[in-house]
Amino acid sequence: MARIQGYLLDLDGTVYRGERLIPGADRAIAELRTRGRRVLFVSNKPLYSRHGYAEILASLGVPATEDDVVNSSFVLARCLAQRAPGAKVYAIGEAPLLLELETAGLELTAETDAIEYVVAAFDRTLTWDKLNAAFQALRCGARFVATNPDRTCPVEGGEIPDAAAVIAALEAVSGREVEEVFGKPSPRMAEAALNVLGLSAGRCALVGDRLETDIAMARAAGMTAILTLTGVSTRSDLAASPIRPDHVIEGLAELPALDAKLNER
Amino acid sequence: MARIQGYLLDLDGTVYRGERLIPGADRAIAELRTRGRRVLFVSNKPLYSRHGYAEILASLGVPATEDDVVNSSFVLARCLAQRAPGAKVYAIGEAPLLLELETAGLELTAETDAIEYVVAAFDRTLTWDKLNAAFQALRCGARFVATNPDRTCPVEGGEIPDAAAVIAALEAVSGREVEEVFGKPSPRMAEAALNVLGLSAGRCALVGDRLETDIAMARAAGMTAILTLTGVSTRSDLAASPIRPDHVIEGLAELPALDAKLNER
Repeated sequence: MARIQGYLLDLDGTVYRGERLIPGADRAIAELRTRGRRVLFVSNKPLYSRHGYAEILASLGVPATEDDVVNSSFVLARCLAQRAPGAKVYAIGEAPLLLELETAGLELTAETDAIEYVVAAFDRTLTWDKLNAAFQALRCGARFVATNPDRTCPVEGGEIPDAAAVIAALEAVSGREVEEVFGKPSPRMAEAALNVLGLSAGRCALVGDRLETDIAMARAAGMTAILTLTGVSTRSDLAASPIRPDHVIEGLAELPALDAKLNER
Repeated sequence: MARIQGYLLDLDGTVYRGERLIPGADRAIAELRTRGRRVLFVSNKPLYSRHGYAEILASLGVPATEDDVVNSSFVLARCLAQRAPGAKVYAIGEAPLLLELETAGLELTAETDAIEYVVAAFDRTLTWDKLNAAFQALRCGARFVATNPDRTCPVEGGEIPDAAAVIAALEAVSGREVEEVFGKPSPRMAEAALNVLGLSAGRCALVGDRLETDIAMARAAGMTAILTLTGVSTRSDLAASPIRPDHVIEGLAELPALDAKLNER
């Protein structure tokens, strides 16, 4: 039996960049699957549902279903629902996040006194009224959690404000710190992924383009950590960082060869 | 001639609280004016024009004109216009701030490449699109200034998010720090007030309810600093703070008596 049976693949910067597939990523993923490896896509973004990400992948030539995707909103919704089933939640986020929370059995409300959790997320529909509603709930003692810690989100030709804008605004006005962030590098994200795969960390490798989220989480969880150079982190970032991947590849096209090496007897 | 010829009075928490006049504030101000003292109202809030604040004061029984008011948006607009006449500005703020900037001869624009200054302010019409526009300008090298540093704004029965929400969101996503904040305790605010009064700092006293903005600014500028206990700061705040007012009054009604004492020969 192969030592590495599951691959967790980051999406943006690893499988695709903006709307373009990383060259050879489709063939590499197909080859791993042919060898019987399980592939799970792991993203910090709460902008689409798991189904939505599966559709994006399929449109780029990588067959995928909802069960092949784990993202920060899914992990957050699942964890909150386990800790406090049916809890009343106020979320600053887009429609797919709200749907994810409701699907997990949480109750969305804007009733200040009733709110048990304030959720901060990437939200291109952010308004001052939303910030104020969340702030009033925090003043009343609501817990304060977030989907992902990212400062910005890379887009074609640049970057745009990510969840850090919402977290920082709420922290500044409330004088409180966010209590938990569920996206990478959170151990909650690693647990959820391993849970979906049904594999132990030692049997899994994670491939991602960010040292401080992807590689940090893989190392902490005990997975094999593979940095790919098609996204944010560069060789000079690597030289300067205390976070060390186990392996470095130029791009996902090199993964089948690395897989063969990792699983040599 | 009296030693103290001008009084700078903070508004919220000093002259009124929410929509109610502090008891006796109207008579105290009338008495000071009868004695020939010049009274100038000095507020950090950019929510109304100077004219708007004069109208609010008049409606509460304190006659005032535009020339009797200095607020953070007025000071910011004046300073920017002096430093960079006609500069291109993108402001996150409400209509009175935008009007103040235009009146000072600055050019409002949303053209990312052209923006020379990003202005962060209290804005109940904040949206993600505004944050993104400001962020893109900051990425292109625009200067980064703000009207006031306040975390929250006290309102009837509570508080709401103030300019700190906008400043923190932009700082978090851009990785930059705001370069200058023009409201109290900024020396720019003190200079503008003294300029309007045509008096030196030694001839002026400031009355305010916040140690860290009102009293800090008065002390730094060399004005007589008078803390009034009708607003935010309490006697226990005072005991714990390194910022020392020269005098403490229970409310503005005590000011004529203190004025008499300050001007004793």
